[in-house]
Amino acid sequence: MDIYAIILAGGSGTRFWPLSRESCPKQMLRIMGDETLINQTIARFTSIMPHENILVVTTRRQSKDIDLHINPTKKKDQKKIKIIAEPFGRNTAAAIGLAAAYLNKASQKSIMIVSPSDHAIGDGRAFSATIKAAAKGAMQGYLVTIGIKPTRPETAYGYIKTGKVFKKPLYHVHRFVEKPDMDIAKKYIEDGYFFWNSGIFVWRTSDILTELKRHMPHLYSGIERIRKAIGTENEQEIIEAVYSRLDDISIDYGVLEKSKNTLTIPSDMQWSDAGSWNALDDIVEKNKDGNIIKGNVIDIGSNNSIIFGEDRLVATIGLKDIIVADTADATLICPKDRAQDVRQIVTELKRRGADEYLIHRTVERPWGSYTVLEKGKGFKIKRIVVNPGGKLSLQAHYHRSEHWVVVSGTARVTRGDEIIDVHTNESTYIPMSTRHRLENPGLIPLQMIEVQSGEYLEEDDIERFEDEYGR
Amino acid sequence: MDIYAIILAGGSGTRFWPLSRESCPKQMLRIMGDETLINQTIARFTSIMPHENILVVTTRRQSKDIDLHINPTKKKDQKKIKIIAEPFGRNTAAAIGLAAAYLNKASQKSIMIVSPSDHAIGDGRAFSATIKAAAKGAMQGYLVTIGIKPTRPETAYGYIKTGKVFKKPLYHVHRFVEKPDMDIAKKYIEDGYFFWNSGIFVWRTSDILTELKRHMPHLYSGIERIRKAIGTENEQEIIEAVYSRLDDISIDYGVLEKSKNTLTIPSDMQWSDAGSWNALDDIVEKNKDGNIIKGNVIDIGSNNSIIFGEDRLVATIGLKDIIVADTADATLICPKDRAQDVRQIVTELKRRGADEYLIHRTVERPWGSYTVLEKGKGFKIKRIVVNPGGKLSLQAHYHRSEHWVVVSGTARVTRGDEIIDVHTNESTYIPMSTRHRLENPGLIPLQMIEVQSGEYLEEDDIERFEDEYGR
Repeated sequence: MDIYAIILAGGSGTRFWPLSRESCPKQMLRIMGDETLINQTIARFTSIMPHENILVVTTRRQSKDIDLHINPTKKKDQKKIKIIAEPFGRNTAAAIGLAAAYLNKASQKSIMIVSPSDHAIGDGRAFSATIKAAAKGAMQGYLVTIGIKPTRPETAYGYIKTGKVFKKPLYHVHRFVEKPDMDIAKKYIEDGYFFWNSGIFVWRTSDILTELKRHMPHLYSGIERIRKAIGTENEQEIIEAVYSRLDDISIDYGVLEKSKNTLTIPSDMQWSDAGSWNALDDIVEKNKDGNIIKGNVIDIGSNNSIIFGEDRLVATIGLKDIIVADTADATLICPKDRAQDVRQIVTELKRRGADEYLIHRTVERPWGSYTVLEKGKGFKIKRIVVNPGGKLSLQAHYHRSEHWVVVSGTARVTRGDEIIDVHTNESTYIPMSTRHRLENPGLIPLQMIEVQSGEYLEEDDIERFEDEYGR
Repeated sequence: MDIYAIILAGGSGTRFWPLSRESCPKQMLRIMGDETLINQTIARFTSIMPHENILVVTTRRQSKDIDLHINPTKKKDQKKIKIIAEPFGRNTAAAIGLAAAYLNKASQKSIMIVSPSDHAIGDGRAFSATIKAAAKGAMQGYLVTIGIKPTRPETAYGYIKTGKVFKKPLYHVHRFVEKPDMDIAKKYIEDGYFFWNSGIFVWRTSDILTELKRHMPHLYSGIERIRKAIGTENEQEIIEAVYSRLDDISIDYGVLEKSKNTLTIPSDMQWSDAGSWNALDDIVEKNKDGNIIKGNVIDIGSNNSIIFGEDRLVATIGLKDIIVADTADATLICPKDRAQDVRQIVTELKRRGADEYLIHRTVERPWGSYTVLEKGKGFKIKRIVVNPGGKLSLQAHYHRSEHWVVVSGTARVTRGDEIIDVHTNESTYIPMSTRHRLENPGLIPLQMIEVQSGEYLEEDDIERFEDEYGR
């Protein structure tokens, strides 16, 4: 079967601040198990299809980070995954339309599975079985949605009401409903015909294009322009020109609620949209006191709380229904019933211009990572880790000089016209305006302390002359 | 009047962890206003007497830190304050006995005011007036205690019940009572004759020695041996020999509860023993929502909470009656009614050998301070600040070399036989075993990043050859 997965990865995930940041949205968090949500999502699909049939749709701004994230050095297969970059986020109808344009160009008969990148799904087997059953409905020309059997009256999800049986386990959709209030949510549970809308869809590419043409003709004409430009020299230019004029609405609202060709599969797989810190209660196992505790934490007698630490020490006593999320530079404390308001903190940070808390202290790079240890007037200190074989760009700074002390491994340093190897416990100095390059020629990670000195110490004081990673 | 203040500063203050540490006990915290509790205590006395009449009794272990703390560069007068170092802490009867031995040697007719170093007192004037009135009772041969008019039924304090009027505002003491339970505390309040025991006492030195002889003859004989040795070459040796055999009990229990010569002054000055995080509610002004908030904090809708941050960001939402205390390396979160259990965290840290959380990341030194920015395998990074004129010891390390990068000011570096000046944005290297010294010859603080490299990086790998501060 000609089946493709479209993974939507444009979300910002401010609701998991301070763990999530602008440069580290929710899909990149390890909140369920040891792997990130997007890599877990990819793994669910690689058991069904080859890597090259997976497309990740994200924004241009996030695409390099996503690429870096899903393509760690050791996993060669993941390099086959394609990344489609939107000029900017434009809701699910546009993202799905864009993906359909690419897929339709590649294969007229393809089936596409649309999936968020940042949801938590417990059981990979139930997922595969459900997708396969959905694909049978799609083969007959239907837009198939995955419904989740509700385990409680939830007001944060949309619902799908099932109609008549199509062919088990497929049902016709009676209607889609928006997030209900608690009284209505309770009735839905009693009723038994209502299922959570998982945001996972299966359909033929040609069918979704037909339905877009019918229900969203304006968006469709834009997508059609893009489809024709794909592979031509105008491709990026056309996408850029068209994108801001595409309707900014969801596929549910734009197509599914209006279409008469919808089916659903009620599934009892474990699923959560991981929409806030609270959602961890659904997806992470608790200890005997009902707590979820991770990191360097000493707890005395807390109950039903979420305590997420990293390296710093977090000491908690007698908390009840409280969320604590601690990172290198910021700590959040709030009761579970206020978890939705974490967004307000992010808004307030932006208002105050305290943007440093919207980026993590440690920043991943294609060659390794750096961590800002301290900033002060006229200086900035970083720990830099360069992976074996990693190579930074040939660059120069015009407002700062840099002192480098190697604390483990060996650095190969280009400095002006000379190339020198700097070993553990040796140091070197890069004056302002000097072209320089850092690489790790060795077999173990290079770890280095950089002390920057100058009047202006931001990341944008960099001129790149050569770069291995096309930056 | 021949009047002296004895400030007891031997406490460890684990109940204010993580703000207080072993090397930064409660008396050194700025929890009420901008000055530390011990410096506030000293200031209350310098309005009554000259600096040279103030004695601080502390343990030998803490005495250097206390000296450094109360003698900052600019305050020459505070250098006149005497510090008496006990070999180790031995409760208030021994500490007061030791101070009395020194005072009695110096002046037979002296009056001593005994005061804890780590209590919070709001109104300096009421304090002065109370002390002066108490001194009149002391002049007539009485042991005078200061009672505080209770503002609530408090179970964490001892009480003094007043008897007949001696001469207003002095009353005879009817009896001293231990910490009551809540029902009894409520009766005390209704009764009207009960006052909190503030731990502040006023008496003639000769009288307390007489009372010690009568009620604690064993301790008295030890103190008498010390008194005779003072000023001789055996002074320290005798103190050392005697101290561990002194009774380990409080002056209240050992003398006051037994003496018939006690008076009390009921005072309505604002007073708190600052015994736990909760006590801040009594001594720090709250905002309109009942919160006490300090440091880099963003709060949305909390009530009646204490949120104490420093430089890191703390974000709180909708907390009620919660204490949050955030420091560079550790964060505490607990409900107010569990504040007493903070000691358990300290106990647990000791049990786990996590001693790093019992010392602050920034350590004050006579020449300035250092802050550990990061530790890793084989390396450690410090930011070092040397005050103008400050001079570290001439030293050597046998397990580490050091890279120094100056980020502001000028360093004068002795390295083996050479002496060089290292300016802003210059660096130098100190190999293992090389004798070296760092000083700041300039007029602005020297700020330097030190990268240590070696197998063993603890503070005790230091041999000192010369030291300005007698270390």
